[in-house]
Formats: sequence, structure tokens, C-alpha cells
Amino acid sequence: MIKVGIIGAGRIGKVHITSICTRVKEAVIKTVADPYMNEETATWAKGMGVEHTTKEYKEIIDDPEIDAVLICSSTDTHSPISLEAIRAGKHVFCEKPIDHDVDKIKEVIAALEGTRLKYQVGFNRRFDHNYEAVQQAVAAGKIGRPEIIKITSRDPEPPGIDYVKSSGGIFLDMTIHDFDMARFLAGCDATEVYVQGANLVDPAIGEAGDLDTAVITMQMENGAIAVIDNSRRAVYGYDQRAEVFGSEGMVAMENDSQSSAVVSNAEGVTKEKPVFFFLERYLEAYGKEITAFLDAIIKDKETPLTVADGLKPVLMGLAARKSYEEHRPVKIAEIM
Amino acid sequence: MIKVGIIGAGRIGKVHITSICTRVKEAVIKTVADPYMNEETATWAKGMGVEHTTKEYKEIIDDPEIDAVLICSSTDTHSPISLEAIRAGKHVFCEKPIDHDVDKIKEVIAALEGTRLKYQVGFNRRFDHNYEAVQQAVAAGKIGRPEIIKITSRDPEPPGIDYVKSSGGIFLDMTIHDFDMARFLAGCDATEVYVQGANLVDPAIGEAGDLDTAVITMQMENGAIAVIDNSRRAVYGYDQRAEVFGSEGMVAMENDSQSSAVVSNAEGVTKEKPVFFFLERYLEAYGKEITAFLDAIIKDKETPLTVADGLKPVLMGLAARKSYEEHRPVKIAEIM
Amino acid sequence: MIKVGIIGAGRIGKVHITSICTRVKEAVIKTVADPYMNEETATWAKGMGVEHTTKEYKEIIDDPEIDAVLICSSTDTHSPISLEAIRAGKHVFCEKPIDHDVDKIKEVIAALEGTRLKYQVGFNRRFDHNYEAVQQAVAAGKIGRPEIIKITSRDPEPPGIDYVKSSGGIFLDMTIHDFDMARFLAGCDATEVYVQGANLVDPAIGEAGDLDTAVITMQMENGAIAVIDNSRRAVYGYDQRAEVFGSEGMVAMENDSQSSAVVSNAEGVTKEKPVFFFLERYLEAYGKEITAFLDAIIKDKETPLTVADGLKPVLMGLAARKSYEEHRPVKIAEIM
Amino acid sequence: MIKVGIIGAGRIGKVHITSICTRVKEAVIKTVADPYMNEETATWAKGMGVEHTTKEYKEIIDDPEIDAVLICSSTDTHSPISLEAIRAGKHVFCEKPIDHDVDKIKEVIAALEGTRLKYQVGFNRRFDHNYEAVQQAVAAGKIGRPEIIKITSRDPEPPGIDYVKSSGGIFLDMTIHDFDMARFLAGCDATEVYVQGANLVDPAIGEAGDLDTAVITMQMENGAIAVIDNSRRAVYGYDQRAEVFGSEGMVAMENDSQSSAVVSNAEGVTKEKPVFFFLERYLEAYGKEITAFLDAIIKDKETPLTVADGLKPVLMGLAARKSYEEHRPVKIAEIM
Repeated sequence: MIKVGIIGAGRIGKVHITSICTRVKEAVIKTVADPYMNEETATWAKGMGVEHTTKEYKEIIDDPEIDAVLICSSTDTHSPISLEAIRAGKHVFCEKPIDHDVDKIKEVIAALEGTRLKYQVGFNRRFDHNYEAVQQAVAAGKIGRPEIIKITSRDPEPPGIDYVKSSGGIFLDMTIHDFDMARFLAGCDATEVYVQGANLVDPAIGEAGDLDTAVITMQMENGAIAVIDNSRRAVYGYDQRAEVFGSEGMVAMENDSQSSAVVSNAEGVTKEKPVFFFLERYLEAYGKEITAFLDAIIKDKETPLTVADGLKPVLMGLAARKSYEEHRPVKIAEIM
Repeated sequence: MIKVGIIGAGRIGKVHITSICTRVKEAVIKTVADPYMNEETATWAKGMGVEHTTKEYKEIIDDPEIDAVLICSSTDTHSPISLEAIRAGKHVFCEKPIDHDVDKIKEVIAALEGTRLKYQVGFNRRFDHNYEAVQQAVAAGKIGRPEIIKITSRDPEPPGIDYVKSSGGIFLDMTIHDFDMARFLAGCDATEVYVQGANLVDPAIGEAGDLDTAVITMQMENGAIAVIDNSRRAVYGYDQRAEVFGSEGMVAMENDSQSSAVVSNAEGVTKEKPVFFFLERYLEAYGKEITAFLDAIIKDKETPLTVADGLKPVLMGLAARKSYEEHRPVKIAEIM
Repeated sequence: MIKVGIIGAGRIGKVHITSICTRVKEAVIKTVADPYMNEETATWAKGMGVEHTTKEYKEIIDDPEIDAVLICSSTDTHSPISLEAIRAGKHVFCEKPIDHDVDKIKEVIAALEGTRLKYQVGFNRRFDHNYEAVQQAVAAGKIGRPEIIKITSRDPEPPGIDYVKSSGGIFLDMTIHDFDMARFLAGCDATEVYVQGANLVDPAIGEAGDLDTAVITMQMENGAIAVIDNSRRAVYGYDQRAEVFGSEGMVAMENDSQSSAVVSNAEGVTKEKPVFFFLERYLEAYGKEITAFLDAIIKDKETPLTVADGLKPVLMGLAARKSYEEHRPVKIAEIM
Repeated sequence: MIKVGIIGAGRIGKVHITSICTRVKEAVIKTVADPYMNEETATWAKGMGVEHTTKEYKEIIDDPEIDAVLICSSTDTHSPISLEAIRAGKHVFCEKPIDHDVDKIKEVIAALEGTRLKYQVGFNRRFDHNYEAVQQAVAAGKIGRPEIIKITSRDPEPPGIDYVKSSGGIFLDMTIHDFDMARFLAGCDATEVYVQGANLVDPAIGEAGDLDTAVITMQMENGAIAVIDNSRRAVYGYDQRAEVFGSEGMVAMENDSQSSAVVSNAEGVTKEKPVFFFLERYLEAYGKEITAFLDAIIKDKETPLTVADGLKPVLMGLAARKSYEEHRPVKIAEIM
């Protein structure tokens, strides 16, 4: 039985608590820590089967009984707590991104070296049924050699401006998922990134030094060209699609909606909008990623998304930012 | 906290155990009874949080601590155990059909009279996201007054011949769900049924006195015409669709599949088949029906599918059988 | 070069004039006759390349230069003019139905006997790209042996009440196309028909002794069950769909719409309604049916829809009417 | 009655001959000229209603009776013949591109100045039902202000290598249609182009100095970002899609296929591939563009695609080539 500690009991922390308590028989949550831990959250957590709650994450780090730590706290704490947990001999699941600073991620990589500890980074979309089916079709050779990879990723509405300011910018906050997806679908790394970006959704985002609309082109190592289009606001819902075109065909996926019901009337033929909220859209995927992490510990095998998989999209995000600022294609090698 | 006893730990019993243990905070399962209870099932149930397992369902009936009973045993036991449970003062959730014999269902109705006990029959499809969306569109007036209701319901493969023999026939075993759905979508009862049936899938089914293919037409009380088409074998998967056409439009739903991925290649443009297994297709619906039952107990309100809702589809099934045998339209009133 | 005479220059006559003038190099239209022939129509026809127009159809019958006659006049003239044309030694293309009276169709059959004249009846839908693809999939064995055939056929709006009164009723006017389609898709005849009908769209239709809503079940000779659903009013457009389910799969077709454009916005995900007008929906099919008729003459081969194919749907329509009146299944043999 | 001369009787010339002869009452084709005019083509043309055929295009230029000239000959003759025709006082419809050389297009523009002659360039896709519906949705404000425009344009198979060598390269030969489409959908010009290109389909194309795979990003004047993805080989057919995303929604279109038939069987749920051949895909659009050209002459109004609309995509194509060669974003202003 694996004993788990969870640091951060915000909405994503709660998703992981629920997943572990309802899906994973081989794990129990011993402690949940959150600096804002309150009565309501503590009661909820205990109802789910959590043994103990606290405001102090050090209790988790210092607890020799705890085998694995989930880091669901704010981004700036991801790499420092990763280091503490690794040094305390614990397996780590860390939400994305590990850090905005490449050197700090390299410290985590260095800390893991020589240990047998598992480290997984939280790119949940790889565990989504649609993306997974696209990737499997590519891996099974159904479309031949990939040549063009297209990823559409548009949020239903922009985050609050305070969040934008501390987010590290659209490329490290939002596109980072799509950078990971490009690697997942291509089966290789990117070598170069070019950004055509704009501030079209909310002037406040531009004033905060960020973009809200972007088309990002990437050269992939295997010769394919990948292109991501991002917007911070799609009024019709969370738009999450992908398409891989290759020498022998194409595989594409559509959005999920709440039901398949279609109404035909005098106005037209209307189906439901895509699911609006990312936690709803990816609920199943969040469950599968945590199951995969715990399974890697139990079976002592590599996690499906290692610390290196956490580093690469950060490099792509930094290259994208540089491309936007210098208005030119930027090689990933320039960042490393 | 509601204490639940579950009678029958076959596949549908296990689905309900899982639902209650993972979804419903206000209920615990005290006892699971099954005449074939074995080590494996007992261990699994305890791992899920069940307190006690037994081979003897009477332990549940006789346990004054148990508030509610789920009857998931074989069909012939549904009405007798319903009566026992009601007489012991317990709320009952009973899998469909309550009985093949109308008089026995009437005994259950009589037993409930004057009590405040809740009784719910297991027509899970009403809780499915797709059917629910169709019904809500109708109820919201989006298609005007219903005029034609079409239900397609085809199993992926025929059941074993032993099952067929004890099933009560296709109308009470399989179409019964569609009869309930016709009532749900029309918002009223049927008054007459006509069957065009055939034995096309497996001669053994015909030899057992049953059909495997049928088109069933119904006159609904509100003037609409409903039509169901059934087959015991759809090689492409579990085919579950519905369409309601009305004075101001139409609403229709499609099958669910595992993912939205579509492969375009030299062979064509191919998407995934419908989900094959009914437990997979309706897993979410099973969870929602149990939640609704327990919620009716907690809030002391009527269940969404009362014992009367259990009777009506049996009447329709018996009328359908009579229509097939006598090759003529049969009024529901002829059965009652 | 085939010389053609066209009797009836209403909207369907005009469609055939256009088709022959723009698609068929091996035929010219010598004469178009219509009792209501006016300046405008005459000018239009001559602009299309028609040599001569007249109010008198006898000019066509009596013209020894004319090889083939298209009968596009009112239904009551179809069989008398067919007889005149056949007796004058002319090939005949006749709009549906040949007659409401079986005996009169039999006279046409008798008149054709011993001649080498071609006769084709105008069931245009067999030439539609969608129905054709469904039929070809069935004929190619892609779905195994047909077991359930479903045809949806709903007009966008009811005809005027004067038309209804002279139409022969919904089964001979509207469903007759679907009866032909059932034969086409099943690859065999029907043996029995059962109707569940209603008057839901317009009370005036009921007062005229007709229905406007119906579900028609048929037993086909090859064991399959066919079901048609009809309505005289689908507010979302001309609803024309079909599905054939068989031992090894299913083939289905959807409606055509003006474009594939889909708008996703705050209201939902909306595509265009089906094409509204039958001449627009089947324009291409009308061209192909006339081409097929002329091709049969040129190559001296059987037409794709012989006079016998014109008789069968009339028998089905009469059986349907009888079924509705007597509220019981009616065998086709009862009509013959 | 407009008298038309057609220069070039290859496949696109034949499409225009057919369109004018079957669709346009107000025009006749007096002369068709082609240096390779042979018996077969001449006979076919006369059968369609063409008065005269010749090998010598000067006969058209010099014929004072001819009002309008369609230039369907090889690309290198487009601008010289345009000049000759304009100087002879004739309206001109010219296939794309007018020229690979901007100066030569400017000569055509200069020649038109001060005349009342109509000039239309052959970007047929603007007349396609799908693209038209997308553009109309944008123009009608259904998606708010355009922010991201996506165009997928993939040929079913690469042209012969001889064609590639004389084509002016992928950007002037193939992408030029997509450049026009980006202008059409955005409702404005591009200011900058960036190309990520590759030679993945056929090494011979690369050896000929050309690309066969490209993702082209454009900054549009109205702030929107446009992105085109091109391939010279899509094994599943001619892939022609577009999507416009905006502040209040999205509009997208799919490919056309031969029918809507879908086969569901043990292999999956399979619909038809997109139409393979561009003449089949755009047959209707070719008819509509010629009708629009002749209508502009008749009504003395501006053509929907003027000589300026012919220049802009050439500038974009030259910028794209420069971007590919210099591996940087290139402003359109650098080309002019």
C-alpha cells in the first residue's frame, strides 16, 4: 500500500484526491497540506478517506511513512518542493510546469540522478481518450510518416489579469500543454519555433506584457511541421482538437460535448457546444495520469512523463517567447 | 447516513456497489448477499468498503439497521423479494422487470400502498446523457408537439440460448427498456402496440419460441406514433439511438464511441464503432440512477421511476407478444 | 439522334427539358405540349433548344418523327396517354404513379407486351447519389443479408388542400416513392403492409379523408422488415434518409444541405438545414433518370424502372390505405 | 447577346465551354482557339454549340464581333494575351495566376486604366458553396471580429515533375488559391508572410527546387492571423477546408464527398473519402465564376475578382518564396 501526501488542495489537488480515493486501491492519502487549509476542505478530505490535513507541507516532506508526493501548489513552489521531496527520498508527481527557469529544472534532474525515485510531470492531455486515440493511430502506422501536425487549443475565457501576470505568459502557462502534445503526436522533439502572436482578446493582457492569440509553427526533428493555434477566449467552449497528416492518411479528433443530441428546427441543425470547463473535459484523463504514476511506483518502471518531458516544453515555451519578442524563428538549441 | 443492503453480486450488482462506494457520501453498504458469494467477490466488496458479505439474503431483510435494499438478483426473485423488503419496512430499488406476471407487480403496488417507502425500478437509460438531452429538448418545447418517436435498440450479440429461454422473451427482456423510453420521450403512455417480428439472427432463438428482430409500432396517448426497431445482433456494436420528430422540429441522438478520432486514408474516412458493452455504455447512467434513488430517500420525495413505471412497460411487452402471436394490433387495455 | 416529345410543361416538365437540352447529346426535343402553354414558357423552351411548342399533346402522339414521349402531365392522364403513345409506337417515360387504378396499369402492361418499346416510370430517388450509394453498399454485400430497412421521408410543408383532394391520398402521392425505395433497397417485393397513421399536421387534410403522418411497416419477401415514417411537414426542411441494417453491418445516409459550413457560437454548434425544395434536392437525380431512359433506348436494353416497377408501389399504396381503414395488416396479395 | 472567344481548350477551357453553353443564355461562344486543336475537340466543341474552332488565337483577338475573351492557355501567355485582348477592346477573364512577374501584372493594370473593360481573374474557390457560406457567415457578423483564419489545402497527388518545373513553384501554383482565400475570408490584405516548408512527398520535387509541404503564417491587416497548410499529396483525396475563428464564435467547413452514405460494420464506421479530382470538386464553382463574369459585363458593374485581386496573391506568393529562402518573416511591402 503506497502512502501519498498531497501538497496543495486547490481545484486540481481536489481532483487528484478524488481520483486516488475512488480509483486506486493500492494507495491511501495520509496527509493533505495547504497553507489555506480550512474546516470545509478538511472535512471534505476526511470524508473522502484522507487521514490527516495540515497547513504545513513540511509535515509531508518529513514524514518517513509517506512514499509519494503530489505537488499541486503554485508554480513557483514546484521546483523547490520537488527538490525537498526528492532529497527526502520520495517519488514525485508535479503539476506543470516544473519551473519557468531551465536551471531550476536542471537542479531537479540532477537531484534525481542516481536515485530510483519516480518523477512524473502533469501533462494530463496525454491520458485523454481522444488524444490517446490519435497518438495510437499514428504509432500504429495508420497514417504513415507524420508530415503536418495541427493542434487547436483555445480556452473558453481568459483568466483573471492577476493570474496572467504571475503565469509566466501564455507560452509557459497555456501553450505548454500543446508543446507537450506536439512532442507526443510527432513522437520526437521540436528543433525550432516561430510565433505569430497578437493581443486581440483583452487589452489588459497586452498591458501585462502577454499575448492572448497566437499561431506557433514548429520544425520537428523527424521532418514534420507542427502548428498550434491558441486563443484565450472561445465563446463556444473549451476548444481542444488535433490532427496529424501523414504520407498515408490523416487522423483527427473533435471536441467532446455533454451529449450527442442534435436539434433540427427552423433555425438550423444544432448540436451542443464543446464542454466548457477543463476539469470536466479532462476529468477522466486526470484519473488516468495519477493511476499511471502510482502504477509506475508499484511496478518500478519509468513514468510515462519523466522530468525530461517536463523540461522540453519549457524550452519550447521560452523559444516561443523569444521568437515573439525578436520576430524571427528561434532554435531550441538557442535556449539550452 | 443510509444503510444499504444489496441482493445479488453479479455484474450489475457490482456496478451498483462501485457507484455507491465512490459517488454517494450519504450511504454505506452494510451487507451484500449472493447465493454464489465467493472469496474473490467478498474480498473485492470489502476493498470497496462493504462491511459484510453473505450467501443469505434474509440477513438483509431481517436487519433492522438496513434502510434500503437493491434487488439485483435473477428476474424471478424480483417481485417476491420486493414484497419481503417492503414488508420489512425497507426502501427498494429493483432491477427491471419487476415481474413477467402483471398480478405479481400489482401485489408489489398493493404492498407499497399506505407506506412512505420509496420504490424505484431500474430503467437506467433515462439517466443516460444522450437520452436525457433528447427528453429535455422535447420537454423544453424545442420541437413542438411530438408526432413521431423512433427508437433504435440493437444488442451487439445475442445472449446465450439458456438465457433466452428464461428471459421472458425479447419484449420483456430487451424491448422493455425501449417501451420505457417511448413513454419517457413521449411523456405519456401507449394505448396500442403492433409487432412485425422475425427470427433472423439465430435459428436456436426461434426454436426456443422467441424472436431476435422486430419493428414495434405504438399509438401513444398524446397522438404521437412511436416505433422501435430491435435486433439481437449488430456486428458494429451496441446501437442505441432515438429521435423525436414534432410540429416544430426534431431532436435526435447518436451512439457514443470510445473516442472522436477519425482516420482518413486510402480506404475511406473511418471513425470508431459504438461502444460494444452495455455496462460501459451506461456506466455513468447506472451511477446516476442509484444516486437519484438514494436522493429520493434522503429528501423524502418520489423516485423518478416508481413501481407504476415498472408496470407499464410489462403491459406493453405482453401486448407486443400477443400482437406477434395473433398478428394484429393489440390495445394495452386488452392486457390490463 | 432520338427525337423527344414532352407532354406537360409544369415544373417537373421543365426539369426534364433542361436535363435533355444540357446533358444529353443524343436527343433533341422536337415538341413540348401543355394545355396551358403560354408565351413565357414557349420562349423559355425555344431558348433551351426546343423546336416546337403547342397546347395539343396529340401533335406529339401523331408525329411519326418522335421516338420517345415524356408524360409529365396530371396523374389522371398518365395511363391514357401512356396507352396512346405506346399504340403510336413510342417509347414512354411516365411520371409516378402510372395510375391509382391497378386495372389501368395492367392495360399499359398489356399494351407493351410483344412490342420492343421502352417504358420507364419516374421514381427519381433511385438515381440520387445518397440512395444509390446505400443500395450499392447493400448489393455489394457490405452489410450482409438485409434485416431491417428504415426510410424517413418528410415533406417540408403540406401541399394545398386542393392538391391533397386529387392526390389519391398520401400513400399513392408521397409514400409511393418510399414504397419504391423499400423495394430498391431490399432487392425484393413486400408481401404485407401495416399502417399506423394520424392526422396531426392540418385538420383540413383529415377532413379531406387523408392522413399527414404515418409509420408504415412492411414484411419483405426476403425476410427483412421495412419501416417508413412520413410526415407532410418538417419545419427544418425536406427530410430524406434511409438506413439498411443487416447480418454484417449497417449502411445509412443523411440529408444534403446547401453547404458544410458549421457555426459554433454562444448558442451552439449549428449547421445548415437540409435542402428545402425537392427539385433542388433531386435535380441531379432527375437528370440521371432521363439519361438512363434515353440510354436504354439507344442501347436497346431494359429501362432501370419498368412498368412492373410502376405497378408494385401502387399495390403497396392500396394495401396501405386498406390497412389504415381496416386497422390490420394487409397482404399485397389481397390487392392483386 | 455577348460573343465570347476562348483561348485554350484544355480541361479548364472545356469546363468553361460547357458552363457557358449550358448555363448562360445571354452569351454564345463564337470561337475556341488552341494551338493543339484537333478533330475530336473541334467536334465536341461544335456539339456543345461553339460556332468556330481554330489553332490561331489571333483570330479571336482580331475579331471585332467578339466582346469577351477567356484566357485558359498556359500561364506564361496569361499576361501577354491579356494585354492584346485589352488593347483590342475586349473584356477578359484570365485563369490564375496572371503572371509570375509583378511588373507584367502591373502592365495589365495600366492597360485597363481609363477603359470600361471588365477583367476577372479565375480564383474559382470564392464561388464554391462551402467557402461562400463561411465567408458569408463572417461577413454577416456571426463570429464577430476574425482573429484566426485556418486554411487546409492538400492535393490528392503531386503533379508531374515537368509541370512542377514550369509551375513557378508551389506558392504561385497551388498556395496562390489559398492566399486569395485568406484575403476573401479575412476581408483584407496580408502584411507579412512566414513559411515553414519541407520536401517530404517526392525528392524529385526538392531536386527541382520546389517544396511539397508547407505551413504558411500570415499577419492580416485587420489584426487576424491566418495560417495555411499545404501538401502535394493527401492519399484520402482533395482536402479543402477552412475555419475562421473570431471574437464571437467560429465557422468551419468540411470536404465534400460523393455521397453521405456511412457503412458501420466490424471494421468501423466508414464514410466516403473527399472528392478526389479538383474539376469534380469545383465544377459548380467554375460555372458560377463564369456566370459572374458575364453578368458583370451585362450589368456593367465591377467583376467580383478584379485585376488587383489577381496581383495580391502573387505578391503573397513571392513573399512566401522569399521567406522560405531567407528563413524569416517577409513583409508584403518588401515585394512591391
